[in-house]
Amino acid sequence: MEIFTEYINLNTDPEIDIIDISDDVRSLVRKHKVTTGQVTVFCPGSTGGITTIEYEPGLLKDIPELWEQIASARKTYHHNETWHDGNGHSHIRAAMTKPDFNVPVVEGELTLGTWQQIVFIDFDVPARQRRLVVQIIGE
Amino acid sequence: MEIFTEYINLNTDPEIDIIDISDDVRSLVRKHKVTTGQVTVFCPGSTGGITTIEYEPGLLKDIPELWEQIASARKTYHHNETWHDGNGHSHIRAAMTKPDFNVPVVEGELTLGTWQQIVFIDFDVPARQRRLVVQIIGE
Amino acid sequence: MEIFTEYINLNTDPEIDIIDISDDVRSLVRKHKVTTGQVTVFCPGSTGGITTIEYEPGLLKDIPELWEQIASARKTYHHNETWHDGNGHSHIRAAMTKPDFNVPVVEGELTLGTWQQIVFIDFDVPARQRRLVVQIIGE
Repeated sequence: MEIFTEYINLNTDPEIDIIDISDDVRSLVRKHKVTTGQVTVFCPGSTGGITTIEYEPGLLKDIPELWEQIASARKTYHHNETWHDGNGHSHIRAAMTKPDFNVPVVEGELTLGTWQQIVFIDFDVPARQRRLVVQIIGE
Repeated sequence: MEIFTEYINLNTDPEIDIIDISDDVRSLVRKHKVTTGQVTVFCPGSTGGITTIEYEPGLLKDIPELWEQIASARKTYHHNETWHDGNGHSHIRAAMTKPDFNVPVVEGELTLGTWQQIVFIDFDVPARQRRLVVQIIGE
Repeated sequence: MEIFTEYINLNTDPEIDIIDISDDVRSLVRKHKVTTGQVTVFCPGSTGGITTIEYEPGLLKDIPELWEQIASARKTYHHNETWHDGNGHSHIRAAMTKPDFNVPVVEGELTLGTWQQIVFIDFDVPARQRRLVVQIIGE
């Protein structure tokens, strides 16, 4: 069994940006010819999260609307009193989504469903450059 | 160290269905005689999630009530305009719960608490046949 | 590749208590001289969760306020009818946060961002003694 560490570099748009990273992850699994194992994707930073969705235009609107309802960008946050960077809502959304994600690899393929994509969600207010960590353990 | 891939097949009920899969996972760990390692459980599909709860009748009512409050089945979702399958709320609940789950194995046992069970939550509207991926890495 | 199992013992405060465990996890990685691999942190128990946040005083107020809004301690829960222990809200918050967490290790360091800490959140009502499981897979 071996471990491979790789990175995915992304330039994200301001406010909530939902990016399909499935093909990036798939390429890295193929590059290392892993047939059985696991991929961990991790976001270094406390305003980004990783999950899966069906990547279609409707949900790309529904998800930001949901987060606006749960942790609105227009509310007052104690975090903003500390740093005055106005992204308290980004931190809360990211803490709930969590920065870690795992998916098994079987017969060289990610075990995603047909209508299931891995997404990185950048919750931060400004545009950001992100470097996600991808670690593959397998054989 | 070795990797074993197994599956759990489930028939789920319509709307939110919360199924205790702890014994299924436990059996697979025993089958492969893993004493130290980790189990990953993954739901292929974007309307299911995996977490832990104390599996008792009260919470089995509380959790659907919570999701009805956060992402109501009676709200309008952009997702439904795309597919007209009426499960926009299922997708949002699943994206927040996430389809991946990890638990260590120590001395041949899952390190769950006494009142803690691994649950698969099927958030989809119709009854579904599901096949969860279980991957055990260990020795 | 090797697997090491360790524990973090914590005494938590009543109601929601957010504890930075990054240094504890870091010490365990150094103790075993793992340079490339992965750490899994797991909470045995259904009223605790693990995620990352920027550990600063503002967010330590924002997060409890958020959970009070989503799953209020003052609401009635079916769980409390079962056990009369008054922690239905704790169970729901923990099921949403989830008890598992993974972070890669690269060149002997956790791949956390500069302003990102691993936190254990004890959602339970009374003060608790907790023992988190830390498993390191790597070389």
